[in-house]
Amino acid sequence: MTTETTTDLAEKDLAARAAELLAEHRASIDRLDAILVYTLGERFKHTQAVGLLKATHDLPPSDPSREAAQIARLEDLAIQADLDPDFAKAFLKFIISEVIQHHQKHQESEA
Amino acid sequence: MTTETTTDLAEKDLAARAAELLAEHRASIDRLDAILVYTLGERFKHTQAVGLLKATHDLPPSDPSREAAQIARLEDLAIQADLDPDFAKAFLKFIISEVIQHHQKHQESEA
Repeated sequence: MTTETTTDLAEKDLAARAAELLAEHRASIDRLDAILVYTLGERFKHTQAVGLLKATHDLPPSDPSREAAQIARLEDLAIQADLDPDFAKAFLKFIISEVIQHHQKHQESEA
Repeated sequence: MTTETTTDLAEKDLAARAAELLAEHRASIDRLDAILVYTLGERFKHTQAVGLLKATHDLPPSDPSREAAQIARLEDLAIQADLDPDFAKAFLKFIISEVIQHHQKHQESEA
């Protein structure tokens, strides 16, 4: 059996407080992830509509000038939001490539 | 000089309407991207705080059980938001790996 010293108790309090803070941050992250998923859901409806318009009017599936403008805009927004602009750019590239892949997959399955 | 037929004019109207619709969808996508960037900025502040707590309390940087729970939750949310669950999972994995890389980069630069 060990006798708890004042230092042991203070450390226990700190660890308990850290666990509480960790749980709070994780709850915020979970709420923010819900915003991200619903926003991506809404974004995807628009890219689907764009894909349909492009297919109907024989426009190319990807548009490098539009993508370049989006990336430049995202960099500005990222700086305003205190987010690493490289992260924001990598994020947009990931979404655009996933959207193109998804549309191609659907076009193939409908072909 | 060409004489425009009714069909030519109708096609022009359709093309103009398609261009309008395309512009509207792109404006929505741009607004949704601003939500995504600001939400990611907010999310990143929380993951930074989590990283700091973990470093202070000697906890491992990655937590597989937490990540598995997040992925399962995102799949449910994606279904509710009518978003491809595979896309949502790929998206979360991308963010988590970027966040871990970013924290490692910062830890190295501060070491």
